Amino acid sequence: MSDRLCPPSEADLVTEAGALLDALRAAPPLTHCITNAVVTGFTANALLALGAAPAMVDIVGESRMFASVASGVLVNLGTPTPEQRDAAREAVGGAVDAGTPWVLDPVAIGVLPVRTALARELAEQNPTAIRGNASEILALAGHSVGGRGVDAIDSTDAAADAAFALAERHGGVVAVSGPVDLITDGARVLRIANGHELLTKVTGGGCALGAVMAAFLGTARTGDPLVTVAAASLVYTVAAENAARASRGPGSFAVALLDALAAVRPDDVAAAARVEGAVR
Amino acid sequence: MSDRLCPPSEADLVTEAGALLDALRAAPPLTHCITNAVVTGFTANALLALGAAPAMVDIVGESRMFASVASGVLVNLGTPTPEQRDAAREAVGGAVDAGTPWVLDPVAIGVLPVRTALARELAEQNPTAIRGNASEILALAGHSVGGRGVDAIDSTDAAADAAFALAERHGGVVAVSGPVDLITDGARVLRIANGHELLTKVTGGGCALGAVMAAFLGTARTGDPLVTVAAASLVYTVAAENAARASRGPGSFAVALLDALAAVRPDDVAAAARVEGAVR
Amino acid sequence: MSDRLCPPSEADLVTEAGALLDALRAAPPLTHCITNAVVTGFTANALLALGAAPAMVDIVGESRMFASVASGVLVNLGTPTPEQRDAAREAVGGAVDAGTPWVLDPVAIGVLPVRTALARELAEQNPTAIRGNASEILALAGHSVGGRGVDAIDSTDAAADAAFALAERHGGVVAVSGPVDLITDGARVLRIANGHELLTKVTGGGCALGAVMAAFLGTARTGDPLVTVAAASLVYTVAAENAARASRGPGSFAVALLDALAAVRPDDVAAAARVEGAVR
Repeated sequence: MSDRLCPPSEADLVTEAGALLDALRAAPPLTHCITNAVVTGFTANALLALGAAPAMVDIVGESRMFASVASGVLVNLGTPTPEQRDAAREAVGGAVDAGTPWVLDPVAIGVLPVRTALARELAEQNPTAIRGNASEILALAGHSVGGRGVDAIDSTDAAADAAFALAERHGGVVAVSGPVDLITDGARVLRIANGHELLTKVTGGGCALGAVMAAFLGTARTGDPLVTVAAASLVYTVAAENAARASRGPGSFAVALLDALAAVRPDDVAAAARVEGAVR
Repeated sequence: MSDRLCPPSEADLVTEAGALLDALRAAPPLTHCITNAVVTGFTANALLALGAAPAMVDIVGESRMFASVASGVLVNLGTPTPEQRDAAREAVGGAVDAGTPWVLDPVAIGVLPVRTALARELAEQNPTAIRGNASEILALAGHSVGGRGVDAIDSTDAAADAAFALAERHGGVVAVSGPVDLITDGARVLRIANGHELLTKVTGGGCALGAVMAAFLGTARTGDPLVTVAAASLVYTVAAENAARASRGPGSFAVALLDALAAVRPDDVAAAARVEGAVR
Repeated sequence: MSDRLCPPSEADLVTEAGALLDALRAAPPLTHCITNAVVTGFTANALLALGAAPAMVDIVGESRMFASVASGVLVNLGTPTPEQRDAAREAVGGAVDAGTPWVLDPVAIGVLPVRTALARELAEQNPTAIRGNASEILALAGHSVGGRGVDAIDSTDAAADAAFALAERHGGVVAVSGPVDLITDGARVLRIANGHELLTKVTGGGCALGAVMAAFLGTARTGDPLVTVAAASLVYTVAAENAARASRGPGSFAVALLDALAAVRPDDVAAAARVEGAVR
């Protein structure tokens, strides 16, 4: 359905996203998350709602082994305590050795030195995918110093060159989250215009997407990672649009997003998708 | 109302559960929780909603003293950092010395070595109650190695022998959570068929039950622990049924569960209870 | 609009609160929070809903620098791990050196020795504001030993003398949360009767208010701190009243509070305010 020279068409991506969503629910991928204390509950709930099997294992002495038996791994650097930093190193080592796909989410790197150094160290292990906002992708690529911490202050296209550079350097997929998500493997680019501004008004709106990418990668072990990561983004952002329609503000949106992740069907994705592909 | 040879009838359990629920709300038990980072907020909210007084004290140098003044203690091993492991040892020591009832929830033991060793170490201190899913109870009893981490992959009856063995070994109550909860003190068995599948789609659905057991044990210091633990399960699972009726998915279910824990009355429990007792 | 000899009138406080709320939304203050694991997600969501920019940075090696670039800082001692204790020291040092306003929330001090010692140590650095319930303010002032941990067992007027003493000792504002919030700078006193009992049935109901105070102080860098802290309390408690009207219990209240923080307007504050001022 996709080759590695041309990006998938919107129709092809929609078909693949629907098939992966069905496959995920039929055989829930064990999704190993090392993530920050702020969003760990919301992230686990998002994975459960979608149909995946989350396991928030961030303990030294457990993380290496668990990453080797998991279907997919997320390493999110939002609150990197010393214990989590070592557990992240373990998990990445275990994932690399076992061939488990893994996602790096370099939260708020740029101005904050501990996580910035760790993100660069872990990126050298060549994540299957890197997900961040434009500031974080720029900072990880060394193209600029990120802004005011966790804010997304740049448009995703402003980080396109940084994303291409990272994808080429590490041989993986880079996803830049924003009003239009930009996803690239260095050769092909997909832009997904789905989503809702309320995702930026809820903590974990972006972090949970990184976990969903890990779950999708765990389901599609042999698929095209660009398509798989884009499928995760598409399903998640379409669910967010459905949730926004059932919301009265950010509190009810977060609740409705979980309901929507449980309810979203391939047909919903097909009806709502707004995707453009390009050769870089 | 109950002796230690025969299990309580459904009618007796319902009466006791209602009396304990009223007593808990009249004098909120200070419930000391050492629990995992994923569910700590939800657990505190569940206890507050029910009417108890939660205190999430997991700091070395504070936990021993606090366990000695608390009404009940929960030790949940979901994210056992080094600090939490030592705090758990302190809390259990303090609870044992002071006679404070305490609940052990051995989350995801089996494949994960750090928590498995800690669960076995703490179990030697003879918890008032142990709560887990079938995999965890099997693993703690040494009857099998648990499955894929936090999943409940076995029916509760598959863990009945493991539960009996643990109850006899440690002289406490063992509660196996699943579609039908199995609760035993080694001599008597109660099976509670209340609850809802959405409890498995929300992180903390089981962990919060362990906290509710600690709160009920704190209220019923001199009662029959089998009855008290079963009463906690019954009130919690009836509330879950009420919540499911007010839900559109896992997000709204978690919210409705808190509302339902605040609203549930002895009459609701009486009307909904589905309990069977047996001599082992 | 206010001088430092007379407390503001209700009308003046309402005007100032509305102006600060508009200013906060027009230029979201970067609000650096070191807070407890139980409420960190809810706190971030409350700040996002209101319109501020939260950053939950509690890592040693990052906290000092970040406190110097943030607009406001919250240090909440609810779950003070060793890492958080050192990060709190860093953050307070960075805030003091940079002149960043900061709020100390001494959660559950009194009986718990680690946090009690830390609260006293940090208070010596003269917080811009201290927020707590009556037990905590009494304990910090050394007027009594706090009660059963996190419970608010004393009326706010019972802690008035302790609040005056702390305000004089540290030259800052002290806010005592309860059915009627008492806010003082040692010379002037404001009593705000807004709010709702459901705030005590949700974990983080008080902790998030401390974060909102830090955000307001970050917006009003040169304002009168007594007025700024009172404005934060007033906006927050009016939002809570609006949320209570849309709630069926503590679960739906927490959700509605986030929606209400996003929706609250200066006119709502003006219509609902119940404020009394006095010279001490």
